[in-house]
Amino acid sequence: MDYYELAKQYKTPFYLYDFDKIKSRFYMLKDAFRARKSQIFYAVKANSNLSVLKFLASLDSGFDCVSAGEIYRALKAGAKKYKIIFSGVGKSADELEYALKENILYVNLESEAEMLLLEQIASKIQKTARISIRVNPNVDAKTHPYISTGLHENKFGVDIENAKKMYIYAKNSKFLEPVGVHFHIGSQILDISSIHEASNIVAKLVKELLALKINLKFFDIGGGLGVCYKDEQEPNLYDYAQGILASLQGLDVCIGMEPGRFLVANAGEFVTKVLYEKFNSSKRFVVVDGAMNDLLRPSLYEAYHEIKLLAQSHENESFCDIVGGICESGDFLAKNRKLPSTKSGDLIIVKSAGAYGFSMSSNYNTRNKVCELAYENGKVRMIRKRESYEDQIALELEFLKD
Amino acid sequence: MDYYELAKQYKTPFYLYDFDKIKSRFYMLKDAFRARKSQIFYAVKANSNLSVLKFLASLDSGFDCVSAGEIYRALKAGAKKYKIIFSGVGKSADELEYALKENILYVNLESEAEMLLLEQIASKIQKTARISIRVNPNVDAKTHPYISTGLHENKFGVDIENAKKMYIYAKNSKFLEPVGVHFHIGSQILDISSIHEASNIVAKLVKELLALKINLKFFDIGGGLGVCYKDEQEPNLYDYAQGILASLQGLDVCIGMEPGRFLVANAGEFVTKVLYEKFNSSKRFVVVDGAMNDLLRPSLYEAYHEIKLLAQSHENESFCDIVGGICESGDFLAKNRKLPSTKSGDLIIVKSAGAYGFSMSSNYNTRNKVCELAYENGKVRMIRKRESYEDQIALELEFLKD
Repeated sequence: MDYYELAKQYKTPFYLYDFDKIKSRFYMLKDAFRARKSQIFYAVKANSNLSVLKFLASLDSGFDCVSAGEIYRALKAGAKKYKIIFSGVGKSADELEYALKENILYVNLESEAEMLLLEQIASKIQKTARISIRVNPNVDAKTHPYISTGLHENKFGVDIENAKKMYIYAKNSKFLEPVGVHFHIGSQILDISSIHEASNIVAKLVKELLALKINLKFFDIGGGLGVCYKDEQEPNLYDYAQGILASLQGLDVCIGMEPGRFLVANAGEFVTKVLYEKFNSSKRFVVVDGAMNDLLRPSLYEAYHEIKLLAQSHENESFCDIVGGICESGDFLAKNRKLPSTKSGDLIIVKSAGAYGFSMSSNYNTRNKVCELAYENGKVRMIRKRESYEDQIALELEFLKD
Repeated sequence: MDYYELAKQYKTPFYLYDFDKIKSRFYMLKDAFRARKSQIFYAVKANSNLSVLKFLASLDSGFDCVSAGEIYRALKAGAKKYKIIFSGVGKSADELEYALKENILYVNLESEAEMLLLEQIASKIQKTARISIRVNPNVDAKTHPYISTGLHENKFGVDIENAKKMYIYAKNSKFLEPVGVHFHIGSQILDISSIHEASNIVAKLVKELLALKINLKFFDIGGGLGVCYKDEQEPNLYDYAQGILASLQGLDVCIGMEPGRFLVANAGEFVTKVLYEKFNSSKRFVVVDGAMNDLLRPSLYEAYHEIKLLAQSHENESFCDIVGGICESGDFLAKNRKLPSTKSGDLIIVKSAGAYGFSMSSNYNTRNKVCELAYENGKVRMIRKRESYEDQIALELEFLKD
């Protein structure tokens, strides 16, 4: 890849996604579960670019959406309606109605109140709502507190006893049809024993429901598989699948999966240009044209991303912080990395930036959102244009008059 | 204020800014320095809505910009060119050229490398660049590490000795004209003694420069004044001004100030609607339609914002987390607050949200950026339209074809 050529053509900073890598990860996961019916529902929030979604749809992926906006994106990208599911703790009435009217596969319910609201809307428009319930199994995923979701102290899901009551209610409702069960205990999980523990708990619930003649078709195991950012050992997919399959013995269900990060994190890079080097006393900073508004993970989660400097020289290696131009000390892409001395115009690649990169980006400091590129079949093409200042003020300008 | 009426008219969530409060804060600060020439340069990054900028320009405010985008915004809003200054560690060549061509008041330089780049650009377009140097006085502002900027371990500014060399270089350059000096040691500072300490250090530099026949006109004391979010005692403005004035004895300079948060934080509110209440075991959550993508401060800085529930009932008060619908546990607006039981549709006001609220907001989870409203002369009007899903995909859609 000639990054300098790309930088010339598209300017910096930009995101670059390798579609072939996304494909190979997709099939790795799919293959691990080949012994059973399974369906991948890609977690759109990780990277919601329309062309990424279209590419995944072409692989027969389904889509896990957490807002009406994500459903809108999936549909625009050509997703099949019966392969879209709708998750999230904060679905509004308007969003639920939209999902029902679009006739998506099912809604992952997160509370009793949400179920009652959905029933009311379904009754209003005279449709049956297919539902799944997100169970909170109270299992510790041992990950960053901000992305751990499977404990009762987290806002997500419904505890087992309440879930059972909700299923019974739904079965007796004219407008609700229970079709699945769901759990998701966190993100970036490296120790899969916690996922297996959760799977056992939830499979037991499915069996109990079966005894009550509530026959669920989808066993949605969520996502959360950890990926390698630095030197982490990714979970073995065979072991992952075996543990899930073991808990499902005697059950005839389709396994639903909601991978996001697993499919796209390591397929993406954030490419940025060196602006300046500076020293404050003995502390060295490499100031680049990308910043926390483009890639928030280092700042928000203290996340580690590999940094690769594309430069001729390898002299004068020393430790430095790679920082952006935003006016706060929290604006950094990496800290204490060993890099040779850089010069203005050198390119720096921030690795593993395909997930929760662009999708979390903002316009802080009135910075334009960057452009996104795709690499596929040996060619690079643009899949989102760089924003302009005119774009940024478009929704404000008319109010200046008077 | 009839918030329910506003919610009906504009939907939720939204930001609401009280322009009268902004005005009163502006004059409080201006008055504290009435003994001397002074100029307020509002820090646009805190809240960069065009109508907010236009309002401040009408009060004769100048503008501290940290990107070409912010200069663009200030100019659109009617700012006077000679009241715009340009700060920030990561100014690109294009941005510096834009600022020079627009003939703004001065550029706050953050490194020697930036000075040399600016000189080169000024030479290319045959203009003289007025400069100020941001000095890093190595003073601890005792605030959140992410917003502390006055230590050598921070990326900001130039240490005193280097600054002196740079001033001498600039004085001898045909294309550079030193007109000011700048320091800014952090944000949300409550103990102003650190600002006074920095002021003394920098004033001493100005006197030394005077002896070298480098006569600076602007003494830019930055911003960083702390405001009350919960029960903090805001610095006394009289004491603040006296400390600065004391350090300037014998110097004939105009005092520049860069308040951001101080002017707008407590003039703004974020208004959101209750969607659901839920309990996970004994833990209570109030799920609202606003989220971390709308207001990142609680998640990023663990910032505290007052929460006010607008509801009839005051029964069954208990502790709860106020959370959004985004799929991570880091998505919360407030934790462990005592609120009466809520019902769907109740409004919740998140106070002190006028600074670093909307300006840091993102589209995470494909959520539309909210609308912004202004309250002025007893009337509420819209100053930014709510975004639509069509807006969100506008820069991606064309790449779906083929």
